[in-house]
Amino acid sequence: MSETTNLHPGLSVDCVIFGFHENELKVLMLKMKQMDKWALPGGFVNIKEDVDKEAINILQRRTGLKDIFLHQFHLFGNVSRNNQAYVDKLVKKGVIEPDMKEWFQQRFITVGYYALVEFANVQEPTPDNISDKCEWLPLTELPDLILDHSEIIHKAHQTLKTQLIYQPIGINLLPEKFTMPELQALYETLLEKELDRRNFRRKMLAYDILIQTDERRKGGAHKAPILYKFDKDKYHQAIEKGLKSGW
Amino acid sequence: MSETTNLHPGLSVDCVIFGFHENELKVLMLKMKQMDKWALPGGFVNIKEDVDKEAINILQRRTGLKDIFLHQFHLFGNVSRNNQAYVDKLVKKGVIEPDMKEWFQQRFITVGYYALVEFANVQEPTPDNISDKCEWLPLTELPDLILDHSEIIHKAHQTLKTQLIYQPIGINLLPEKFTMPELQALYETLLEKELDRRNFRRKMLAYDILIQTDERRKGGAHKAPILYKFDKDKYHQAIEKGLKSGW
Repeated sequence: MSETTNLHPGLSVDCVIFGFHENELKVLMLKMKQMDKWALPGGFVNIKEDVDKEAINILQRRTGLKDIFLHQFHLFGNVSRNNQAYVDKLVKKGVIEPDMKEWFQQRFITVGYYALVEFANVQEPTPDNISDKCEWLPLTELPDLILDHSEIIHKAHQTLKTQLIYQPIGINLLPEKFTMPELQALYETLLEKELDRRNFRRKMLAYDILIQTDERRKGGAHKAPILYKFDKDKYHQAIEKGLKSGW
Repeated sequence: MSETTNLHPGLSVDCVIFGFHENELKVLMLKMKQMDKWALPGGFVNIKEDVDKEAINILQRRTGLKDIFLHQFHLFGNVSRNNQAYVDKLVKKGVIEPDMKEWFQQRFITVGYYALVEFANVQEPTPDNISDKCEWLPLTELPDLILDHSEIIHKAHQTLKTQLIYQPIGINLLPEKFTMPELQALYETLLEKELDRRNFRRKMLAYDILIQTDERRKGGAHKAPILYKFDKDKYHQAIEKGLKSGW
């Protein structure tokens, strides 16, 4: 980035990419060059581009990740979130060019986006020129982050949990056919708590988005559990209109 | 507003204030001076002020409304939402001073906030210097609005409907003691659809936020209906943690 005159002043974008894999929830983070701190993939918005569209471009430029559906969830606009001392340090360490100092010293507001992906399915993320690593880190053991990035991640996770109440989730995160315990494990991972097996089953079936197949998961000593798949029409209808449990 | 150097560049705020009264849903709108168009109360953000706090200030300056709890719900950031021809017209009509033309011609993103109030309880709204009326207009019969304000109102209403799925609503909108049909009428107004009486009752009681009093609403020929009130502790807990129907 050399031309800051093409950018929307005082505006940045930050992306919280949650990765789900084998019942673990991780977050895609960049390690800053010359510093022992990590940051969310983010950047600035071209003045001639829609903010939502630019968020997708930024994510791709910063991490190599393509075709991720991002949900905009919050604008972080507190004055306290800017940190002049931090900018000075970045300039001093050579992470930011001196002629970019003025740009970075503005008061910034940032728009938060999040996504949830099965990270085994996405191509290898690759760092950009201000970071030297791009990795999936466990949500529960995050290292030291820059600015208010911890708060942004926390808020994104809260929003994801709320989304589970009124929207279906699971397509692209589970194999095409899955067992009820596998679906429950996904919810438990996202909610960070255990759920009652019978209540979960009852509620999930009441949503009317599952098709029971006549196949069973083989292997294991126990009775082979039934395989389900999503009814894609009903699933997408529920995304539009909310789950049946709603009003 | 004369000093634009104190303002965060390219950023505005728009407030969708829904008013509920006698089972009708209205929106607080300002009529633009010299034009047959209406607008949401909104304005610009001081560079040294938190965006959320400034939204409350703007609402008060523009409408006289105080102590309204605003929910931030979306950033509208499409390039197409700006309209140079419209700014030219406002300058020509004398609504905008010529020395402010440059400020208004920037590309703006706007942060949307909404609130829901019992409008009989709020003091008289009063217009500011660029509008000549400030009125509650019925949501279903809105006049011609400026820019993308129709879209902002639509999105706010969608968000309000979704909020009903996971958060309680009713304190400050209903009298302290109310009947189940009165609570149902509130939901029906907000959702713009009829609900089944028995399902509504069952679901609402399952939320465990109501206290059944030993009083009944008197008058009328039918059997006097039972009065309920909110259990304030459980109500506020449900706002924090979500309703019992959630996961």
